[in-house]
Amino acid sequence: MKLSQLFTKTQKQAPADSDSLNAKLLTQAGFIAKQMAGVYNFLPLGLRVLNKIQNIIREEMQAIGGQEILLPVLTQEDSWQKTNRANLDILFHLTGRGEAKIVLNPTHEEVITPLAKQFISSYRDLPFSAFQIQTKFRNEARAKSGLMRGREFLMKDLYSFHTNENDLNGFYEKVKAAYFKIFQRVGLGEQTILTFASGGSFSKFSHEFQALCETGEDTIYFCPKCNIAINEEIIKEQTTCPECGNKNLETRKAAEVGNIFKLRTKFSEPFNLTYKNEKGENNLVEMGCYGIGISRIMGVVAEIFNDQKGIVWPLSIAPFQAHLISIENDKKVIATANKIYDQLTKQGIEVLFDDRTEVSAGEKFAEADLIGIPNRLVISQKTLAKNSAELKPRTSPTTSLVKLTQLAKRFLLPKR
Amino acid sequence: MKLSQLFTKTQKQAPADSDSLNAKLLTQAGFIAKQMAGVYNFLPLGLRVLNKIQNIIREEMQAIGGQEILLPVLTQEDSWQKTNRANLDILFHLTGRGEAKIVLNPTHEEVITPLAKQFISSYRDLPFSAFQIQTKFRNEARAKSGLMRGREFLMKDLYSFHTNENDLNGFYEKVKAAYFKIFQRVGLGEQTILTFASGGSFSKFSHEFQALCETGEDTIYFCPKCNIAINEEIIKEQTTCPECGNKNLETRKAAEVGNIFKLRTKFSEPFNLTYKNEKGENNLVEMGCYGIGISRIMGVVAEIFNDQKGIVWPLSIAPFQAHLISIENDKKVIATANKIYDQLTKQGIEVLFDDRTEVSAGEKFAEADLIGIPNRLVISQKTLAKNSAELKPRTSPTTSLVKLTQLAKRFLLPKR
Repeated sequence: MKLSQLFTKTQKQAPADSDSLNAKLLTQAGFIAKQMAGVYNFLPLGLRVLNKIQNIIREEMQAIGGQEILLPVLTQEDSWQKTNRANLDILFHLTGRGEAKIVLNPTHEEVITPLAKQFISSYRDLPFSAFQIQTKFRNEARAKSGLMRGREFLMKDLYSFHTNENDLNGFYEKVKAAYFKIFQRVGLGEQTILTFASGGSFSKFSHEFQALCETGEDTIYFCPKCNIAINEEIIKEQTTCPECGNKNLETRKAAEVGNIFKLRTKFSEPFNLTYKNEKGENNLVEMGCYGIGISRIMGVVAEIFNDQKGIVWPLSIAPFQAHLISIENDKKVIATANKIYDQLTKQGIEVLFDDRTEVSAGEKFAEADLIGIPNRLVISQKTLAKNSAELKPRTSPTTSLVKLTQLAKRFLLPKR
Repeated sequence: MKLSQLFTKTQKQAPADSDSLNAKLLTQAGFIAKQMAGVYNFLPLGLRVLNKIQNIIREEMQAIGGQEILLPVLTQEDSWQKTNRANLDILFHLTGRGEAKIVLNPTHEEVITPLAKQFISSYRDLPFSAFQIQTKFRNEARAKSGLMRGREFLMKDLYSFHTNENDLNGFYEKVKAAYFKIFQRVGLGEQTILTFASGGSFSKFSHEFQALCETGEDTIYFCPKCNIAINEEIIKEQTTCPECGNKNLETRKAAEVGNIFKLRTKFSEPFNLTYKNEKGENNLVEMGCYGIGISRIMGVVAEIFNDQKGIVWPLSIAPFQAHLISIENDKKVIATANKIYDQLTKQGIEVLFDDRTEVSAGEKFAEADLIGIPNRLVISQKTLAKNSAELKPRTSPTTSLVKLTQLAKRFLLPKR
């Protein structure tokens, strides 16, 4: 994409009404624009990041057999009455024509459980799992953390259905492994800590994936030996590391980026979701649910990976792989930069090309740092004298020259 | 995908509460499931169709320079007050914490106009266009046409911004051409009629793309000579064909699948969206908006393309290219069918493989017809005796044998 054509712009100053570092950086760099508290517009650069996170998650969900579906935003309040959750204070309620009582779904157990009931009759129909990538809604009292806590946000939610607890447990471990892969791939591998949390009335624990982050909302008790943690909410019941018994846990601030939960029969009971076993007896279906905050990951990454100049995207979710800059309004420089842009793009390398002629080199560099694409490529008369482009990783202060003929090869590394 | 693993099922009987032919067929064949009137779940097969329609539209929007963004579902009611549209009866209203008055967007002029204002100051920032693919909401009194009229539905909306009417007019024609391509590609080329409709207070006409369909809600006055039509809503002002003057127009029923509209300054005025021209004078930005109903296209296609046995998908938006069926529970048949499935899939050919062993050939054929994938491939002892598979197009009563070695080639035709 050529910057001269991109309709959005970076801002010299951070917006005055930013409620968090991630909102400040993402807004200033032109990724998002605030609509109202906790509700954001995703601009072209931001949507690219969101899509990359989505695609990583989709691949890993499909790899464990998840079937993609799309459940609605609107649901009749009745379904939420059935599970005694219609009074949850984060629910948005509205009334449609004909006095229809409607809810905006913050999660979809109330939808998928009766839906699954249409297709489950026998043990032969189990197990299976289905996921969706869908916008969710929470009527938050305080939405003050940019993309880290939204009233409208994008999530992946996976639901699994089993004949027995044992089968649920096996799948739960598969999802746990898939989640570690996902957080690794989006660049949060080192930061993300498996955290024991409340299991509700049906299970001892659930698990959260908490990304260490000073501005995170959660406090976790971390065991450095085992690299796991306990959420503050259960620290009174569970005072030691569940793995090694370590009593010297360290408190850390963190942001929850995913959670996995054995629902057991919590939802199959109110909806009477049963299957016939080999003997023809009816049993309740065992369920699990598994969430990941997609827009929240984008917020957390921006919150963690930045410096005074701007965002520092991990390559895997960066809006582009390379930020190409032509400096000096020299005919040959411009022509060569355009040629390189075309060549790289044709080979499937994602390039943001700052082709503007009215902007100084200094401003272009500052904007490149603010936007935070991992590789900056500069074409100037000086670099062309050596048939090269100047490459500067966003994370490094030093530059190197790469021969123009070697550029494509340089970027055609495997993406994972 | 293997049918033995797909969690959804077809139904022998049409659901009793179907409100339309498209809902009946799509539900019975396992593409969608009704949540409430005008609100549907998209199941794995249905989501594949939706994604294919989306991708075709996305490609054509990008081809005319549209930049993809994602605008929110929730918007403060204030913005709708500004344009005097807060009382539209199709608006869903809700109240958030702190008495925040919120609207579920049925369209996004109230969002994109102030958003664009953040990035437009000079004529140098124009023209540009941005589009999104987003769920929209309408508080419909009667949502009785399946996917053809939803309370929650998926749309593509494109907005364009220009310095003057002339530039808007030029882009408008580009979009018109792109829309014809889109309807051609999704399989509605022959059915879709450019229809003159009300232009509101700012333009003489807008244009709708109306797909001829007996169960459509709209009545259009068709000129067979010019292959254009006039919407009933303006037939009193415009009694003859706007192109040839023909007075003998034929009435037809049709479903609106797209519309394009010159907004001119209707929205730039209330939001004071201006740009500075070459002389430094402030002028209002000229705007256009261009919508396509994505889930509606899915409904209209199912409504139009079907026979007594089920749906007949156009290849371009079919959930799979081929429906592979193994019959007779013979070891060699099963092994060969699996091998062919793996080979075709590896080559990027989308195959739905009915690998179930407990289902009769007759039932498999009936389900294949109901689901409506364009090519049915049968592997049996008889076809294997000739090293072949039996190919039957969904639209043809006759079958032919294709050598197994030629199968991949058969399907690797260009998709467009």
